[in-house]
Amino acid sequence: MRFSSKIEKCGLSPMRKFHPYQLEAEARGRNIYHLNIGQPDISTPQAFFDAVKDFQQPVLAYAPSPGIPAYIEAVKGYYDRLGIQLESGDILATTGGSEALEIVLACILDEGDEILIPEPFYPNYNTFVRVTGASIRPIHTTPEEGYRYADRAKIEPLINEHTRAIMITNPGNPTGVVLSHEEMRLMADIAKEHGLFIIGDEVYREFVYGGEKLASLAEFTDVAENVIVIDSVSKRFSACGARVGALISKNKALMGHAMKICQGRLCSATLDQVGAAALYGVDPGYFDAVREEYKRRRDTCMAGLAKIPGVVCECPKGAFYIMAKLPVDDTDKFQTWLLQEFDDNGDTVMFAPGEGFYATPGKGKDEVRLAYILKQEDLERAMEVLAKGIAAYNAR
Amino acid sequence: MRFSSKIEKCGLSPMRKFHPYQLEAEARGRNIYHLNIGQPDISTPQAFFDAVKDFQQPVLAYAPSPGIPAYIEAVKGYYDRLGIQLESGDILATTGGSEALEIVLACILDEGDEILIPEPFYPNYNTFVRVTGASIRPIHTTPEEGYRYADRAKIEPLINEHTRAIMITNPGNPTGVVLSHEEMRLMADIAKEHGLFIIGDEVYREFVYGGEKLASLAEFTDVAENVIVIDSVSKRFSACGARVGALISKNKALMGHAMKICQGRLCSATLDQVGAAALYGVDPGYFDAVREEYKRRRDTCMAGLAKIPGVVCECPKGAFYIMAKLPVDDTDKFQTWLLQEFDDNGDTVMFAPGEGFYATPGKGKDEVRLAYILKQEDLERAMEVLAKGIAAYNAR
Repeated sequence: MRFSSKIEKCGLSPMRKFHPYQLEAEARGRNIYHLNIGQPDISTPQAFFDAVKDFQQPVLAYAPSPGIPAYIEAVKGYYDRLGIQLESGDILATTGGSEALEIVLACILDEGDEILIPEPFYPNYNTFVRVTGASIRPIHTTPEEGYRYADRAKIEPLINEHTRAIMITNPGNPTGVVLSHEEMRLMADIAKEHGLFIIGDEVYREFVYGGEKLASLAEFTDVAENVIVIDSVSKRFSACGARVGALISKNKALMGHAMKICQGRLCSATLDQVGAAALYGVDPGYFDAVREEYKRRRDTCMAGLAKIPGVVCECPKGAFYIMAKLPVDDTDKFQTWLLQEFDDNGDTVMFAPGEGFYATPGKGKDEVRLAYILKQEDLERAMEVLAKGIAAYNAR
Repeated sequence: MRFSSKIEKCGLSPMRKFHPYQLEAEARGRNIYHLNIGQPDISTPQAFFDAVKDFQQPVLAYAPSPGIPAYIEAVKGYYDRLGIQLESGDILATTGGSEALEIVLACILDEGDEILIPEPFYPNYNTFVRVTGASIRPIHTTPEEGYRYADRAKIEPLINEHTRAIMITNPGNPTGVVLSHEEMRLMADIAKEHGLFIIGDEVYREFVYGGEKLASLAEFTDVAENVIVIDSVSKRFSACGARVGALISKNKALMGHAMKICQGRLCSATLDQVGAAALYGVDPGYFDAVREEYKRRRDTCMAGLAKIPGVVCECPKGAFYIMAKLPVDDTDKFQTWLLQEFDDNGDTVMFAPGEGFYATPGKGKDEVRLAYILKQEDLERAMEVLAKGIAAYNAR
């Protein structure tokens, strides 16, 4: 039997490929500091669990395909508080931001089409794009420039007759880049001028550390036909396991096509939507506390990195990742070595090697993504172990 | 902006297209008996809700991409009780049977490929297949032959160099056809001889009314490389809103490819998997009671249909649907008329018109699918209303 040429082009997650080495290291008694995954340790607000426990219907029935009204209204209210007016029909409940992306890309990409994405980017975009038969054309950035991409001169030469969309993660995973209002305007303008969709994966919206106003591409009402926003409760409320997201657009043709897929898969999980609706009633003070906590963690990591000679890294403005260039030959080999050969008093560290975040072959080999999702003292120790690891690796 | 040629070929669900007329009829005070949807009214076992309420972790974290161990083990144990030995790696937890199908088809279908499916078939298969760029080649059946399709002479002439798989729903939706052991063997043999995957959508496995042993294509271990089973807790435990299913296969290459998509979308909802694992501990007496209830309902519907002159319908052996040929010109028009023009003491009835279940243009125009998911007295009245409706429609 033969497999589809599209799935043959997909790969496993680069964040998960060191899992076997991790198990071996743990079996040898190593303690591992995990900076490799984006699973926050912040408690999910109790409102989620209370709403789920209060569910009283005897039959756990299908939800409506576009989502349960309470969840749709909750998302609408949330955007309303950001100053963005949505209709209920502009929102579709999805199984995480992931499904929202899968649906959007299935609606707009054909075999041979291209989508522009700044690299480094979230590696699962590869899978979502490749199963449609389209490909990613990367917008190049460098660690030296702080991974900035909102530059007309960088983007426009990449647009051709195959280009269908530009997709950005803002705040950025893995780079932590946060676009200014002017930069968002520019990205929207470029999309509009070239008749492209502009997809904003904005699931880290609340995670901005410079006092920025919470932003969305949905603000630019004159580009409403082009704008598609991907949203999720996963990071916002530390509810990754709920798998409740949203596909948001005022482009009615797009939403009509998306509805076909939504009806095909029937609905997103009913109880999780009930819980997610309740999350949007959480006191805004929750975000302030979480933001403060992550900001401290970011600063701890940056202070740790600053002590390591040869690291190139601008302080990220958002999300909870740092992309950094390390003074090693190959971060894939370095990670393997850290798990197989190294320890400092029994401790070692994991990160996500950079290569998997790039579409351009060979790029990112000396970069890593660090997720600052551990508590303060663990992060301090993790950065110390990383520093000692780099020194020992280069002294082999 | 342009949309993908694949999504342009997809349509909305034929089961949901009468929704606007339904709302109008309800606004005029009509009482509607719903035989149009497959949402059972049976209570979800309390075990699901108890397990969800007992969840104590403060962070609702991502589940592992292949599923939480408790759920995978529960599915394994269930198959073990059917006499089918699975390894944990043969099972992937999916967001309903729907996602399992989406994943499988993305793994095996390329642009221009074909998949054989007996028609009439579950209309959402259209969407799942079309987004891959492949197409459905229907295996024709007729109401007069009881929609039977397990016939080498019918199937083999349809296989060509583009054929990648045969997909069957067993027990059948919408037909209620249940394959005998010999027929399943034949379908598996045809797939093996022609180097095709054989996909068994077996989500109605427990719903068989002739005392049949619970069956699965996974029994045929000599065809294990070809067999893919789609499963779900939705119908089995009346837990449609949980969206927990399973993709099952012993073909390691297929499961490796499927894992790429599973990792891409991260995981299925954590809490629902916890609840679904608990469902598999439900006392087997639960199925006996449910089966008895549905059997009575089927018999009520069949008795009602037997009183209507001109209906062609063999008694279905499984699932909870009856596909029937009605003595009307066009069941789409008839449904519209029932909602807009007809009532019997304020009552009218909805079904799913047959055309949407066929790939062949023009077929199924005088057929309907009836879902017997109402309680006894409601079903009796619904069949009476249907009979009066047919008489009045033909006497216009």
